[in-house]
Amino acid sequence: MKVLVLNCGSSSVKFQVIETSLEMIEADTDRTLARGGVEKIGLSDSRLTLEVEGRKPYQEISEILEHRAAVERILKILVHPEHGVLADVREIEAVGHRMVHGGEKFASSVLITPEVEAGIEECVVLAPLHNPHNLRGLRAARGLLPDVPHIAVFDTAFHQSMPARAYIYALPYDLYLRHGIRRYGFHGTSHRYVAIRTARLLGRKLDEMKIITCHLGNGCSMAAVARGRSVDTTMGFTPLEGLVMGTRCGDLDPAILPWVMAMEELTLAQLNAMLNKHSGLYGMSGVSSDMREIEAACERGSRRAQLAMEVFCYRITKYIGAYAAAMGGVDAITFTGGIGENSIKVRAMAIAPLAFLGAELDGERNTHAPRGKEYVVSRESSRVVVAVIPTNEERVIARDTVRVLGGVMPSFAAPETAAPR
Amino acid sequence: MKVLVLNCGSSSVKFQVIETSLEMIEADTDRTLARGGVEKIGLSDSRLTLEVEGRKPYQEISEILEHRAAVERILKILVHPEHGVLADVREIEAVGHRMVHGGEKFASSVLITPEVEAGIEECVVLAPLHNPHNLRGLRAARGLLPDVPHIAVFDTAFHQSMPARAYIYALPYDLYLRHGIRRYGFHGTSHRYVAIRTARLLGRKLDEMKIITCHLGNGCSMAAVARGRSVDTTMGFTPLEGLVMGTRCGDLDPAILPWVMAMEELTLAQLNAMLNKHSGLYGMSGVSSDMREIEAACERGSRRAQLAMEVFCYRITKYIGAYAAAMGGVDAITFTGGIGENSIKVRAMAIAPLAFLGAELDGERNTHAPRGKEYVVSRESSRVVVAVIPTNEERVIARDTVRVLGGVMPSFAAPETAAPR
Repeated sequence: MKVLVLNCGSSSVKFQVIETSLEMIEADTDRTLARGGVEKIGLSDSRLTLEVEGRKPYQEISEILEHRAAVERILKILVHPEHGVLADVREIEAVGHRMVHGGEKFASSVLITPEVEAGIEECVVLAPLHNPHNLRGLRAARGLLPDVPHIAVFDTAFHQSMPARAYIYALPYDLYLRHGIRRYGFHGTSHRYVAIRTARLLGRKLDEMKIITCHLGNGCSMAAVARGRSVDTTMGFTPLEGLVMGTRCGDLDPAILPWVMAMEELTLAQLNAMLNKHSGLYGMSGVSSDMREIEAACERGSRRAQLAMEVFCYRITKYIGAYAAAMGGVDAITFTGGIGENSIKVRAMAIAPLAFLGAELDGERNTHAPRGKEYVVSRESSRVVVAVIPTNEERVIARDTVRVLGGVMPSFAAPETAAPR
Repeated sequence: MKVLVLNCGSSSVKFQVIETSLEMIEADTDRTLARGGVEKIGLSDSRLTLEVEGRKPYQEISEILEHRAAVERILKILVHPEHGVLADVREIEAVGHRMVHGGEKFASSVLITPEVEAGIEECVVLAPLHNPHNLRGLRAARGLLPDVPHIAVFDTAFHQSMPARAYIYALPYDLYLRHGIRRYGFHGTSHRYVAIRTARLLGRKLDEMKIITCHLGNGCSMAAVARGRSVDTTMGFTPLEGLVMGTRCGDLDPAILPWVMAMEELTLAQLNAMLNKHSGLYGMSGVSSDMREIEAACERGSRRAQLAMEVFCYRITKYIGAYAAAMGGVDAITFTGGIGENSIKVRAMAIAPLAFLGAELDGERNTHAPRGKEYVVSRESSRVVVAVIPTNEERVIARDTVRVLGGVMPSFAAPETAAPR
């Protein structure tokens, strides 16, 4: 079955066409036929890109004013006689949509019905920067592909198995009851995928493992995955909490916010911009939000880049310790995402202090981990395995689409303990 | 030497008279002659209390309108023929003052000179709720005891040895450079004292140990103490960050603050009140900020009290893991403060998941730990020792006073790495 995977942001639509089926999932033979996207929607120089294996990347610049037009352009290029990969759009048998926030409503990927759509709508208040665009993309795609099933895959669903002790903040309880303020966690499809792949790579049963997954990309988060279920994660009510990110601050003394607002006379919008756009690696280093440039600046002797690097890695180290404690031990630590897969130095610095836990990198393997491959980077003798697993969120979305349609989609709900209501 | 120790808050002055000397510190024979305080300063029913060992506690109610009058009343009762413990105020040879915030200026306890006083004044902006009262108390005491040395002992000083990676937030760097926004940590005198006592209790050298100290009282914080130096701590720029406390929230997704402010139309003052007064154990349980009452409510079957207990202990467990990772291991975990010394259940719940680290409580010893005594509560076979050490911040202040005057006060400065300026 050919599945169109869509990931709609405020001014972009990313897509992949993936050929998959329950048999192909089992045999791990599903494959991406095409990938690409439309950027700068709403501007006169919107850019459409298309990548197909074995061909030169295709690109065109034109005015694309809204999401429906963007999806229309994508479908058009997919059936283009020269550049496309489909003979007819009717080859697309289902569409999988990335949805950021499923609140407490969605603990699984689901077929989008009117009720489901209303539920996603209700979660807009929790993710005002993401869910409206996801919904806009859904409506555009459904208008253009009305006869195929559309499936929602939530960033939050995998973490719905967390116990209450991990998701309740020590705030007035009313904020949880009335507004749903709790830890949700994000990057769920990625954490779930790399945890499953880690067990598979090691030839062990996921059900018997305690895995700490580190998704280090533009956004960064970690999860504690015990017996295949997320039991804690660093992102919280929003994707701001936890690790240091490119431009996001992660963990912070909350009292700093009112202090700075008063001192600098900031509005809420300015405060949000400061925390989300001017902090993180960029804020500390003054150099860049990009880890490659931070590493280059370290090489050139920038002390602030060095500091940014140390804070970034130190926080990962601490969360590994915290999650080992949360699970009562750890069998494997997995790195994924752009930084996790490619930064030799981040892996080395984050794991270095953890010999006491039984986690020891193999310097040689860590340095020469093959790009884009699943690879063990710890020593043979390391009690805790450290692995690199390239993530593939689109593939998980395509697979979930097939699983939902095949009636074999598991739910991640039913935490060990839920908070009283 | 008889030292008067003063701890001045907004509407209270607490004191102790402690007999100590360098020899008595060495022999651990220093002792408290009297303790007490004035509460409700500024009201018509201010209360003065005095406790002397072997006597019935003394108390009087009267109108005490400001700090100078409070210190005056304290000195008067101390020389009272019937209730007092001194023949003459001139027996007081030095005054030790608890100071909350020493910023980056003070990495040690110091004799208060005009320059030091100006330095404390400069730190007022960092601790507007505490330092002004500490200064008010200092000025009152100096006015009344002008001929003896006054020494400042800072809550933050012990943590000045933290490396930059532990104290820099991932915020725009300017906030550190211009406003000094960084992690400072508090409860330093307590963490330092119990770390030293832990090594002593175990007959080991502090210089060779990695100790995690858990100060769980009205405020709660933990510290990672490696070779006698604080290398990380849970409280941050203010005492709000980190663990769950009686009414303080501790760690939080910072994005919750602007979200709630917008949603509930809160002012900064209301936000601060929410985070500091209506959160923590009280906010979650709806029952009480007092751990004894939370435990009682758990016994009665309150699900929210149970949840509050779980969140409280879970966060301690996670920080133990995080600090073990930060130090590359841990030799001892020490509990102190009202909750740390007295809650059998908190120690049991916090340590239970940590067998993988080699920390195993002895159920019998934990249940029957003698009140007010230094005591090991882990099993003989436990690789990591777990201990209970009653804290005594006033005693540390008195001792530091003697050490400063004797010229043997160590400085905690010179972190392994400092942030570039």
